[in-house]
Amino acid sequence: MNTVQQPSLSTDKPLDIYPHDGFITRQMRNRQTGHKSGVVWLTGLSGAGKSTLSSLAEQYLFGKGHLAMVLDGDTLRSGLNSDLDFSKQSRRENLRRAGEVASLFAHTGHIVLATFVSPFQEGRRYVRDIVRDNFYLVHIAADLDDCIQRDPKGLYKKALSGGIENFTGVGQGYEPPEDADLVINTSQADIADCVKQLIDFVSDRFSIE
Amino acid sequence: MNTVQQPSLSTDKPLDIYPHDGFITRQMRNRQTGHKSGVVWLTGLSGAGKSTLSSLAEQYLFGKGHLAMVLDGDTLRSGLNSDLDFSKQSRRENLRRAGEVASLFAHTGHIVLATFVSPFQEGRRYVRDIVRDNFYLVHIAADLDDCIQRDPKGLYKKALSGGIENFTGVGQGYEPPEDADLVINTSQADIADCVKQLIDFVSDRFSIE
Repeated sequence: MNTVQQPSLSTDKPLDIYPHDGFITRQMRNRQTGHKSGVVWLTGLSGAGKSTLSSLAEQYLFGKGHLAMVLDGDTLRSGLNSDLDFSKQSRRENLRRAGEVASLFAHTGHIVLATFVSPFQEGRRYVRDIVRDNFYLVHIAADLDDCIQRDPKGLYKKALSGGIENFTGVGQGYEPPEDADLVINTSQADIADCVKQLIDFVSDRFSIE
Repeated sequence: MNTVQQPSLSTDKPLDIYPHDGFITRQMRNRQTGHKSGVVWLTGLSGAGKSTLSSLAEQYLFGKGHLAMVLDGDTLRSGLNSDLDFSKQSRRENLRRAGEVASLFAHTGHIVLATFVSPFQEGRRYVRDIVRDNFYLVHIAADLDDCIQRDPKGLYKKALSGGIENFTGVGQGYEPPEDADLVINTSQADIADCVKQLIDFVSDRFSIE
């Protein structure tokens, strides 16, 4: 049992927190599933194809009996992160919690396909530092014009008419990652090809036969 | 794709949140594992045996190849909830996030064994309302004197000497649940018997053969 002495936020007295180790380790779970676990963080513009590609990869992995799950930014915002808005501080907290939850699933043996626009280098590095082990950054790249044309959620239309402040790609920039472990460009290849790139990458990094 | 229009906390403008449905449903995951998923919420005093019993049950279920995991209050407080203190508001937020995370794991096919002192009826009802489907409340009961004698984390000693304010059982009361789905009394039965009670309950409720 590890003891983590943390300062109380309100009183600065130490809190007594004893994280629970249990009997079933990540390694035991990995042995049982037959593959490693960790986090594939898909970053990219809205409409780039993050949800489409992660869902198809999840479907493939699930079909093979592997432990995989999609952790979707919007889904998280409708539950765990429903108390957060889109201020700078809240976006950071949104990423922190996403990283912590992704870690919990990774420790429980899952290949986590995390889909978050996560437009800034700083935020993505922050998440990488939280997850640490087996974290891979995948940039789902696409031309902005293609994203605007696809507009699966109608958000570009709304943003371009002034209905959404600071929408990534319209009112706010997107910093392409310099440290991506993989770049998949959905403007240059069709869906099947892009999914294959993602599955091949996941299979290689998580030792799936 | 569902659209959830939520008020922005900072601007009161609607946010555009599109939770991601994906292809792999909870039902599909349940079919693959061969058992239902959901949350077993273990409440009780520190030292009552929540961690011991949940770890042994996890070990048993894992050994049978089932998807089970312990969600431990202290573990969560050292990661996702490390920004929260023990004020009334923070305790409520601690429970809210625990409920949301437990739900994510339940939706991903897990039997979640959640161990939280959760001393108040109101807080436990709050979590039940968040999880909704397949939520079971298990009271791990024990005489306070036994808990003080066991004192696995040395917290009663510290609390009794004035080192921890509002420690449950010392400076603050514990409301035994009136709506428990199961009560396991670790002062009246030995560990093996108590574990069997928990495993039998879980096997029945989650349709484990």
